[in-house]
Amino acid sequence: MKHALLWVIAACILCARLASAQVTHAGRLHNLMPIPAEVSFGDGQLSIDSTFRVAMTGHKEVRLSRAAKRLVLRLSRETGIPVNAEVSNDSGMATLHVRCEGGGNSIPSLREDESYALVVTSAKARLIARSPYGVLRGLETFVQLVESGPEGFRAPAVRIADAPRFPWRGLLIDVCRHWMPMEVLKRNLDAMAAVKLNVLHWHLSEDQGFRIESKRFPKLHTMGSDGMYYTQEETREIISYAADRGIRVVPEFDMPGHTTSWFVGHPELASAPGPYQIEPSWGVFDPTMDPSREEVYKFLDTFIGEMAALFPDQYFHIGGDEVNGKQWNTNQRIQTFKRKNKMKDNHDLQVYFNRRLLSLLTKHSKKMVGWDEVFHPDLPKDIVVQSWRGQKSLADAAQQGYQGILSFGYYLDHMRAASYHYSVDPLDSGATELTPDQKRSILGGEACMWAEFVTAENIDSRIWPRTAAIAERLWSPAEVMNSEDMYRRLGVVSQRLEWLGVRHRSVYALMLRRLAGYESPPSQEDPLWRAGITPLQTLADVLEPVKFYERPRSRAYTSLTPLNRLVDATRPESERAREFSTMIQQLLADSSRARHVETIRSWLSEWRDNDAKLRPLFETSFLLKEIDPVSRNLTDVAETGLRALKAFENGMKVDRTQSNEWLTFLDRAGQAQAELILMIAPPVRRLVEVVLPVR
Amino acid sequence: MKHALLWVIAACILCARLASAQVTHAGRLHNLMPIPAEVSFGDGQLSIDSTFRVAMTGHKEVRLSRAAKRLVLRLSRETGIPVNAEVSNDSGMATLHVRCEGGGNSIPSLREDESYALVVTSAKARLIARSPYGVLRGLETFVQLVESGPEGFRAPAVRIADAPRFPWRGLLIDVCRHWMPMEVLKRNLDAMAAVKLNVLHWHLSEDQGFRIESKRFPKLHTMGSDGMYYTQEETREIISYAADRGIRVVPEFDMPGHTTSWFVGHPELASAPGPYQIEPSWGVFDPTMDPSREEVYKFLDTFIGEMAALFPDQYFHIGGDEVNGKQWNTNQRIQTFKRKNKMKDNHDLQVYFNRRLLSLLTKHSKKMVGWDEVFHPDLPKDIVVQSWRGQKSLADAAQQGYQGILSFGYYLDHMRAASYHYSVDPLDSGATELTPDQKRSILGGEACMWAEFVTAENIDSRIWPRTAAIAERLWSPAEVMNSEDMYRRLGVVSQRLEWLGVRHRSVYALMLRRLAGYESPPSQEDPLWRAGITPLQTLADVLEPVKFYERPRSRAYTSLTPLNRLVDATRPESERAREFSTMIQQLLADSSRARHVETIRSWLSEWRDNDAKLRPLFETSFLLKEIDPVSRNLTDVAETGLRALKAFENGMKVDRTQSNEWLTFLDRAGQAQAELILMIAPPVRRLVEVVLPVR
Repeated sequence: MKHALLWVIAACILCARLASAQVTHAGRLHNLMPIPAEVSFGDGQLSIDSTFRVAMTGHKEVRLSRAAKRLVLRLSRETGIPVNAEVSNDSGMATLHVRCEGGGNSIPSLREDESYALVVTSAKARLIARSPYGVLRGLETFVQLVESGPEGFRAPAVRIADAPRFPWRGLLIDVCRHWMPMEVLKRNLDAMAAVKLNVLHWHLSEDQGFRIESKRFPKLHTMGSDGMYYTQEETREIISYAADRGIRVVPEFDMPGHTTSWFVGHPELASAPGPYQIEPSWGVFDPTMDPSREEVYKFLDTFIGEMAALFPDQYFHIGGDEVNGKQWNTNQRIQTFKRKNKMKDNHDLQVYFNRRLLSLLTKHSKKMVGWDEVFHPDLPKDIVVQSWRGQKSLADAAQQGYQGILSFGYYLDHMRAASYHYSVDPLDSGATELTPDQKRSILGGEACMWAEFVTAENIDSRIWPRTAAIAERLWSPAEVMNSEDMYRRLGVVSQRLEWLGVRHRSVYALMLRRLAGYESPPSQEDPLWRAGITPLQTLADVLEPVKFYERPRSRAYTSLTPLNRLVDATRPESERAREFSTMIQQLLADSSRARHVETIRSWLSEWRDNDAKLRPLFETSFLLKEIDPVSRNLTDVAETGLRALKAFENGMKVDRTQSNEWLTFLDRAGQAQAELILMIAPPVRRLVEVVLPVR
Repeated sequence: MKHALLWVIAACILCARLASAQVTHAGRLHNLMPIPAEVSFGDGQLSIDSTFRVAMTGHKEVRLSRAAKRLVLRLSRETGIPVNAEVSNDSGMATLHVRCEGGGNSIPSLREDESYALVVTSAKARLIARSPYGVLRGLETFVQLVESGPEGFRAPAVRIADAPRFPWRGLLIDVCRHWMPMEVLKRNLDAMAAVKLNVLHWHLSEDQGFRIESKRFPKLHTMGSDGMYYTQEETREIISYAADRGIRVVPEFDMPGHTTSWFVGHPELASAPGPYQIEPSWGVFDPTMDPSREEVYKFLDTFIGEMAALFPDQYFHIGGDEVNGKQWNTNQRIQTFKRKNKMKDNHDLQVYFNRRLLSLLTKHSKKMVGWDEVFHPDLPKDIVVQSWRGQKSLADAAQQGYQGILSFGYYLDHMRAASYHYSVDPLDSGATELTPDQKRSILGGEACMWAEFVTAENIDSRIWPRTAAIAERLWSPAEVMNSEDMYRRLGVVSQRLEWLGVRHRSVYALMLRRLAGYESPPSQEDPLWRAGITPLQTLADVLEPVKFYERPRSRAYTSLTPLNRLVDATRPESERAREFSTMIQQLLADSSRARHVETIRSWLSEWRDNDAKLRPLFETSFLLKEIDPVSRNLTDVAETGLRALKAFENGMKVDRTQSNEWLTFLDRAGQAQAELILMIAPPVRRLVEVVLPVR
């Protein structure tokens, strides 16, 4: 009873209206991500040592005890605390006392209560939540609080009241363009749970592959894939693994376009005769289902029935994007069908198809999700529109009472900076004019990992850590938007995610090492050997892959093309170039930053000298040959930067010819080569601009 | 027809008696491991580019086409060749033409024909084998031949005729002391195949856990494990995954000792009443099956029948080691039973138990394998003795006509150098006196990965790359024994194994990073941050874990103890210390090696300066605190080394007091601290010894 007061406080925190004004650091620098709705640090800290025990009271379920066990195992691995993963009922002895006030669906649905309150004092930690989902989220926050000190591990005293801003916080994984084995999904589910994402959007069929077993139509997966597909048992395993972590699994079967792989075994579904084969290229293709044939709906009725029974989530994604209409236009029967049904264009035909699909989904008790294209004002209000077009598109739908989720701005395959994704808010832009009620129909968003240019090997490095920034955008209050602080915390989260199992960090060295070739351990005195891959990494650290859809510009890509070049190893965002750029900005804003000058000079010198160290590798590694000019570029840009820095220090302006030459060179150096962008060219250009002659 | 001659040559090579005299480098430095029985390099090379195609003729089976596909995918990942994994029959167009002369068991048995011939010319590569097993081995050799050059990838012209020296080349993985998930087994099977190992010895039951589902006696796995066990479906998956790679799977159920976990659900099998619980500690424990009760054999009959149906291999390992006899001695009924049956001691009782077990195995068509202890001269000749005692033990059995495999000298958990394992030959020592026929009954050996001190996280780093050296010992001619060249090739193999999926290399940085704590990305100019974990790695690079069974000396270990300290991250063998030691040796042998002096000085200086760089981490990382004295030690040893080096260069001898002080210090510095050994202390001591005053 003596702790009753604390429970009352925790409960009050939980019940209090979550204030939107939120102090980022709440009295203390912390590593929480996403930042809780309300957080306030106090004095003191709770020791995390070998006496650490978890007790759980209130609602009981196996999911909670498993979650507590995972928590203890993680703490154990990070801290060296001997594992005592037994969860007791005895709150008196517990370091962390978890109280769950009520149950929740065993398979999560859209509107679970994910709120929780967490109070840490120097004596104890208490987590209280109304549902198991709140407990799961709160446990992740607790793990993030634990930090290492010289005398052991500890969690700072804090009071947290937390709940998500949006109920739909997802990650789309495309398993069709490149196959993703079970372990890729599992480790990414672990990572999703760590940053409080709650929807795995599983993109299961595409022109390039049909990736799930159908017992009713086995030709779908046997003929529509290269043998790489999830069995129904594996599918259930993923669903249950996700549910254990409070994550929904929404399957997507993209129709009526993006369906080539269906037609390999079932050409009768298509709008042109066939035969078909699995599409090895990337893009938008002609094969499209025939909406004019009743047999197609009969087939889909059976298929959707089978999948609806397999996937327990209320929602079922039917894709609906990028139908180019070519097969429809050349099919006489379809043209006749359109005329007979007074359809004025292919959009009308797709609306008809969607309406038929919708009735099948309804029959099988599912709600429909589709991309922007499916939206039509006479569809029922419980459909969900997923927008790749932007907030305006969602807002238009919301004004008509439709629900939506945002993916515009969250395309991970565009290789953009975390700060960019972080700046995209589902309620910005077109959505600002909405009424509070209309805003509530914007359910959240989804990061999208389209897989044309990722494999099981490097997918983690494209998803993480950037997706953690998106997760914060979707969970934390809108006012949390300090990008600099986001990057600081992202660095910590990134490490912890790797310990949890995703390999975004370790795959980098592995791929660089492989690019460097089969290195024979050399004579002991060889300095090149001792340098190892350092010069290659020094270069790679300031490169980024080309953005958006630029990769196929320089070479033809298909599903047969290996993704093992430097562009596939480099990180989507160069941390080092970002830091360099910040230093240059700060220096130019305040030239008294003398320490900056020293660091900038030393970095530029390292880069200038790098090509000479890296060059020997070009003699032995065929795969690195293409970066020979990129490496020279780094040296030349750094050399230019050093000269401009000297002029800047001496207060000199360089002559016009010289400066024009530099600017021309830097513009060229900033362009893509070998599908890579040298990210220090723009900041060096800014330095050059200040030493230009005044006109 | 025009290539008929080459086929004849290949076939001749294959049929030729494999010469035992073998030139290590066969005209060219190569990276093959294990070294083939016969290899001879020619002129020219075969380009491996996007025209690369595989054709297969002769005997067809899905296992071969899958193997060819894996080969192409690997080459593709390493070289960037677009994947064309379709295998044709058209040998004319093929870069690599594989001819399989005949079939083989779909589940490998002990005496499969693994021989093959491989001929590479500048026009084509040809692999010929009598069975699919030879093809599998030959494909691995082919992959190892491919190397990177400035103009692309290539394989050198070569003629290889190869066959293993021993038919049983295994790796034991203990999945009981620490649980190993499916992916650990799979990736290690991939790595085993790469170095031509052919037996996975699956240690499935122990005092600490019963790790496989029994449908007949479900209490075995449900009560005898923490929920971590392989289902029968998973077991079949592993067996089939292994068979696809030509690897046998031999299950071990250790009896009558090491059986605590059986008794948790089935105390009636034990020699003392119970109740029992899963043993969390390491060691030899009392619980032992009761050989005097018929119910035990009835139980084992059913159990072995179930497992015999699940595991297709002819051999079944019954353990049989380390029975301490305590439960037997205190059980009156067992004592009476012994007297009644005229057994003079517990060994007789175990012999009786084994004989009963043997008849059960025979009933279920299995041959028995057991540790040294099971050997008894009235057992039938087709049993196999696995020896942890040594070659003498095997030889004694062989002289009586028994078959054996060696594991003495191949215990990976002893943390010994690859060169040590490499030097242990199953036919050395006691076995040299055997007749050729007796020698043939020595079937090979097995590396043993006992799992008291490894987890799923670091197990790869304990198995690889050292096991590749054991694999070479068991495959290559006995004359292949140049340890220096082995290390050179091992470095290459180690990298390639990592690309294949085992994580012995990448887990190192991951664990060091975690030990360093949750590093907040710092201010840009902070040199400590830029150093990252480099100082920690500099130290870790010259440390090794303590050897043999020394870990429990300094602290109590149980299955609850996390294995996340520096001793768990450091590699079993320090490459850098080995190189340093070699340099010192060479310098002392030939003081004209001036370049050595420079390198030695620069390495010693780096080590001397390391403690200052590492020290700040001790302030923030609790887990690293224990290595504070180890780090100081490195600095002090290096300082001593620098002084001795100076004296050596000047031709001076140091005075007696000084030298005694140094030697005393170095002896102390070479002792274990925090379960770690500083490996540069002995070579520095050798340097000091030469500057000692002459008596």
